[in-house]
Amino acid sequence: MSEPAPIRVGLIGSGFMGRSHAIAMRTAQAVFGLERPLVPTVLADVDAATAKHAGAALAIDRTTGDWRSLVDDAEIDLIDITTPNTLHEPMAMAAIGAGKPVYCEKPLAPDAATACRMALAAEAAGVPTFVGFNYLKNPLVQTARAMVESGEIGEVWGFRGIHAEDYMTDPAAPWTWRLDPRGGAGAVADLGSHIISLARHVVGPITDLSADLSTKIRERTTAAGERRPVQVDDEARALIRFAGGATGTLEASWLATGRKMYLAFELTGSKGSILLNMERMNELRLFVRGGVAGREGYVEIPAGPAHPDYAPFCPAPGHQLGFNEIKAIEVKAIALALAGGAAFQPDFREAAMIQATVDTILRSARERRWVAVDEVLPKGFVAG
Amino acid sequence: MSEPAPIRVGLIGSGFMGRSHAIAMRTAQAVFGLERPLVPTVLADVDAATAKHAGAALAIDRTTGDWRSLVDDAEIDLIDITTPNTLHEPMAMAAIGAGKPVYCEKPLAPDAATACRMALAAEAAGVPTFVGFNYLKNPLVQTARAMVESGEIGEVWGFRGIHAEDYMTDPAAPWTWRLDPRGGAGAVADLGSHIISLARHVVGPITDLSADLSTKIRERTTAAGERRPVQVDDEARALIRFAGGATGTLEASWLATGRKMYLAFELTGSKGSILLNMERMNELRLFVRGGVAGREGYVEIPAGPAHPDYAPFCPAPGHQLGFNEIKAIEVKAIALALAGGAAFQPDFREAAMIQATVDTILRSARERRWVAVDEVLPKGFVAG
Amino acid sequence: MSEPAPIRVGLIGSGFMGRSHAIAMRTAQAVFGLERPLVPTVLADVDAATAKHAGAALAIDRTTGDWRSLVDDAEIDLIDITTPNTLHEPMAMAAIGAGKPVYCEKPLAPDAATACRMALAAEAAGVPTFVGFNYLKNPLVQTARAMVESGEIGEVWGFRGIHAEDYMTDPAAPWTWRLDPRGGAGAVADLGSHIISLARHVVGPITDLSADLSTKIRERTTAAGERRPVQVDDEARALIRFAGGATGTLEASWLATGRKMYLAFELTGSKGSILLNMERMNELRLFVRGGVAGREGYVEIPAGPAHPDYAPFCPAPGHQLGFNEIKAIEVKAIALALAGGAAFQPDFREAAMIQATVDTILRSARERRWVAVDEVLPKGFVAG
Amino acid sequence: MSEPAPIRVGLIGSGFMGRSHAIAMRTAQAVFGLERPLVPTVLADVDAATAKHAGAALAIDRTTGDWRSLVDDAEIDLIDITTPNTLHEPMAMAAIGAGKPVYCEKPLAPDAATACRMALAAEAAGVPTFVGFNYLKNPLVQTARAMVESGEIGEVWGFRGIHAEDYMTDPAAPWTWRLDPRGGAGAVADLGSHIISLARHVVGPITDLSADLSTKIRERTTAAGERRPVQVDDEARALIRFAGGATGTLEASWLATGRKMYLAFELTGSKGSILLNMERMNELRLFVRGGVAGREGYVEIPAGPAHPDYAPFCPAPGHQLGFNEIKAIEVKAIALALAGGAAFQPDFREAAMIQATVDTILRSARERRWVAVDEVLPKGFVAG
Repeated sequence: MSEPAPIRVGLIGSGFMGRSHAIAMRTAQAVFGLERPLVPTVLADVDAATAKHAGAALAIDRTTGDWRSLVDDAEIDLIDITTPNTLHEPMAMAAIGAGKPVYCEKPLAPDAATACRMALAAEAAGVPTFVGFNYLKNPLVQTARAMVESGEIGEVWGFRGIHAEDYMTDPAAPWTWRLDPRGGAGAVADLGSHIISLARHVVGPITDLSADLSTKIRERTTAAGERRPVQVDDEARALIRFAGGATGTLEASWLATGRKMYLAFELTGSKGSILLNMERMNELRLFVRGGVAGREGYVEIPAGPAHPDYAPFCPAPGHQLGFNEIKAIEVKAIALALAGGAAFQPDFREAAMIQATVDTILRSARERRWVAVDEVLPKGFVAG
Repeated sequence: MSEPAPIRVGLIGSGFMGRSHAIAMRTAQAVFGLERPLVPTVLADVDAATAKHAGAALAIDRTTGDWRSLVDDAEIDLIDITTPNTLHEPMAMAAIGAGKPVYCEKPLAPDAATACRMALAAEAAGVPTFVGFNYLKNPLVQTARAMVESGEIGEVWGFRGIHAEDYMTDPAAPWTWRLDPRGGAGAVADLGSHIISLARHVVGPITDLSADLSTKIRERTTAAGERRPVQVDDEARALIRFAGGATGTLEASWLATGRKMYLAFELTGSKGSILLNMERMNELRLFVRGGVAGREGYVEIPAGPAHPDYAPFCPAPGHQLGFNEIKAIEVKAIALALAGGAAFQPDFREAAMIQATVDTILRSARERRWVAVDEVLPKGFVAG
Repeated sequence: MSEPAPIRVGLIGSGFMGRSHAIAMRTAQAVFGLERPLVPTVLADVDAATAKHAGAALAIDRTTGDWRSLVDDAEIDLIDITTPNTLHEPMAMAAIGAGKPVYCEKPLAPDAATACRMALAAEAAGVPTFVGFNYLKNPLVQTARAMVESGEIGEVWGFRGIHAEDYMTDPAAPWTWRLDPRGGAGAVADLGSHIISLARHVVGPITDLSADLSTKIRERTTAAGERRPVQVDDEARALIRFAGGATGTLEASWLATGRKMYLAFELTGSKGSILLNMERMNELRLFVRGGVAGREGYVEIPAGPAHPDYAPFCPAPGHQLGFNEIKAIEVKAIALALAGGAAFQPDFREAAMIQATVDTILRSARERRWVAVDEVLPKGFVAG
Repeated sequence: MSEPAPIRVGLIGSGFMGRSHAIAMRTAQAVFGLERPLVPTVLADVDAATAKHAGAALAIDRTTGDWRSLVDDAEIDLIDITTPNTLHEPMAMAAIGAGKPVYCEKPLAPDAATACRMALAAEAAGVPTFVGFNYLKNPLVQTARAMVESGEIGEVWGFRGIHAEDYMTDPAAPWTWRLDPRGGAGAVADLGSHIISLARHVVGPITDLSADLSTKIRERTTAAGERRPVQVDDEARALIRFAGGATGTLEASWLATGRKMYLAFELTGSKGSILLNMERMNELRLFVRGGVAGREGYVEIPAGPAHPDYAPFCPAPGHQLGFNEIKAIEVKAIALALAGGAAFQPDFREAAMIQATVDTILRSARERRWVAVDEVLPKGFVAG
């Protein structure tokens, strides 16, 4: 009888995230000893030369300048999209059309309408989908979610979620595709989608919100030396209400001078609270009520083999996982789902709900009023 | 020639803050070698027995059960009010009527209308006023303000302000005067006023906001064993805009399980950023752009004699000041103002603007819309 | 019937520590509501003018340039010595001779022989003595000691004690009396004595040790502009063994570039461990074995009213005590001891044992061998 | 012309470190795009069944129960040893005999005599050797070394090095091969060798030392249920002197209750200081003298692309590397060295000097005196 075959991946894009995907697939195979590992098989990029060059660096032999060829390639089992947002839809739709599972980086689409259309198409075609909100796979995020689900910290009362970095703080930072309003939004799409995904994953759906956006640096210079107005948000903030009764705030900024990876939340419950901060992503701070007087405080818990998905990396606690290794956990979960294991989250549907939350922030800020997430969903798309 | 006379204080109240005031006056005298120190001279409390007992503990010889006697007492130079909020107005008005300076604990009043009336009365009478927002006197808060003023961190872009504690997290915590709606509000008044005072002090006036309040524990038990509904907020959150263009959020909660003194802000500027957290109130974290690659990061600055008002406590850096010692700096500033030195801030006018910001949060939450602070000010009271 | 009289203090010295004592006495009175408070009554300094000037700053009316006059002054109940080390002996001996209790700053004497002589003289005269190792009074140090005593962290296995500051790092820092070899030693006396006092207080007597000293900056300039060789240690390190079986290290340095108040220890026990660091002196980190897998870690405990001597300062946890307030706890303990309460520690005897440990470090470093603390004790002085 | 061939690795051992090596080789290939990557080709373990099982988990197809077969295997280019210490010598010697490069986990050997013999054999045979002290490859450790070399922190004065974990704290932890005295030593070999390697790498050679060892849990139970005495150290501490004039301490403990990965040092220089702690291995704390008063403090530097070997993992700072990824940097350095690039450190010679430092600690503790590292070196082995 034949061995289980690897899952042959057609990877589109070789930038920050394309690279991260390729590394994570190799690491996942070694760490998790997968029966059916994801193997980067063909790399597509904007043109043949770029693809070839990047392929060499990433040890992917086959390369192409035509991403469409991957869709039709019988030797490709999974289409993996790491391109700018505006390209996600045509690529994913082509893959879905060919009946191929799709792994797509976040955010799924420039707007909720598109994202919902993609989700419905995938569901209609029965194609499994996977969206790369990698932080959800951090063993300590999984632990936080499990603590909420089990009631370990009681009823969830409050949530303060932040994703703040400073890669656009320098006014000389150039105008890039992230600033293109066709991509939908600015910091709220790029970073806000991460913290929304965490909020939904750990606490549950956000039902309505009041938001404020601002653009502090109003013009930037393109690579070509032209001044161009910035039409997307630099910063977004929102008051939020969750379906389960919790209340809180969300914040996204790419002008957060000094911050490099401040994706963090404080989750307050009636019995305890949880602090997670990806600046120290191998630590979780937990407070549980009811301790002995004079001995109470936050427990600083180092990630270890008692937390999900840590042990295969290392049998000893405190030895730490890196950013790409969290991505490798994501890859593992995709491999298991494709091999018939547990369904993967977030899929396109969940990513569409995340995108709808982004769109709700945009509308609320524009109309300066509280907006329900339901208001931005296309007719017939049932909120999750 | 006669020696400068001490400033004889009639202290009303001997609870948490009354005690803190009495201690701070003694410490201030020893630390700052004041020519005209504040000296707690008579203590008034709810009745003669309570006052006598507390006076013994605080080494205040003269005591009384009648606060009104202090106002008329020729041997009292300053009326110091540390009672529940609802009593601030009659006491302060009586003192103002007698032409005596007033030192009053925060929040100044249950609502902005009252606070503004008090401010106008004091100004009309030419009576100096002092409100006890003690954290403003922390040497590192003073330093943060100076850095903003000097442009050291550039244009202020963002402000995230939080005051979260957990003293009401326990559902068995009893119904107290802090929950009495006649006092105005809940966490947003008690804790929110602190973070508003910091936001205004360090960044400047808040012009408009969108807020959300919630009450998570809807009933509590009185000392008498009765169940009583909670009609004030447990938690408050607001999106804010500052007159100077900065945007941000405010948050106040007394249900922040695990938090004891989480009065903190992150102030983001175009050239740098500042983090202050009263959980570690002797440290300031500063990031300044433009450092050498690979050597950049937040500087953790310990309080020391280079910061305002630290050196008189200790000539060596890192030796730390305590909560009551920050209060002693406040007392010193009052003593100097009364001796003809620099005017003290916050006075009743500033405290009225803080209260107006609280009221704006209440109205915004009630009406679920953005509200300008100007909307809640009494006619003729010019916003500061 | 007459009121209990205050304890009238004759304070000698108005430098860093003289000032701290004066402040602490005022604070202690206000905080602890002492029946018989220590009251700074006369200040002596090197000459009348200096004393007068300092007295004004510290609100001490009576001043003198002749410390001997305090000893004979019928209105002085307690002699408080905050002068350079070499002067402690004649001053303390004079006070003992006059039958007056003595409060003396650390280190007690330039060498163990002198310190032991002082201890024996005080004991022979029945004079109570108090030595100012203030950090022992930190509520969290008291808590650590109580945890060790109760067995809460099991058998003590290891102790790493450090007192490192950087006030001599600058080669331009001038030659001062701290460098005078007649004072005995350098960093090991000034800072090492603190960490030795903590080690003995929390764990117990140190019996033998192997030490190394070094002088990294070998010449300094006096105020008069002369170059003078440095004959005392800049840094000291020792391997230590405790009577109870624990082992560890001690370290003292005044060249610890960047450190301002790094007086810290890690205490490892068979059931748990304790971390204390005076850089954050209001926090204790505690690990206790046997927790739930995946929830174990250090608990970061903020100082609060559940810890000894905190509540009189503030009823709420997390509000922090300052350096001088720890000193005020020391003053309170002296006041209670003089009023017939619990005996005060450390007294001259304990301070002599601390000094003997310093001398053992000096001898071990000089002879480059393990030395027992007993070896440096004068004949007939029984080790404690 | 033919492609550069991969380096085919014969991996011996599939425990904690064998697994880490296999993962790191896959990650290194993907991250660094190596021309000649290390490829785990055959896995040897204690018997064929164990090897086969582990091979499946690690995706290594060829497996064997006979490690000797790897040495003679023409398809194996590099022998990689991750077995217990006592087996390192015969395996390495066999590989050297066959002229094959050797990659060996630390510590190199049970004693310096063996390690020196191995080093000399490899040098005589001209065989490149690589020892797995992986922490040296941490981008921030590399940065610390570069700062020392460039004089950025001035003359090195002090070094406090610690490697403390608690995996043996539980008295019920079983007797294992790590406790076998034939392996040489206990914590000082297993953990102490790591901190010695760091001390030598960052500061330079240690010339003499005074040490103390202790065994706190004197008996353990074997897997077979027998009680067996513990003859190796649980804890080791040493005073050290460096060739360059710096002084300091080393500490190793596997009884450090609460500590999981406390491999840390504080390096004090005349111009600045560096703190590194593998509990937060993506952060370096740097203090540099001469800053502006009131703005000085430790800078908390997050690892980023400005530090060596970080950028290939991720273009953005603050995204963190994990334990196995540090190992992947080690693997990359080996690959480059084998491809004719920069020589790899530590090689067997350096590892022998590390082992000699361990042996010096053992002798110093046994003889209770200062011992020079030269004293334990075999005749004719020149110290490095």
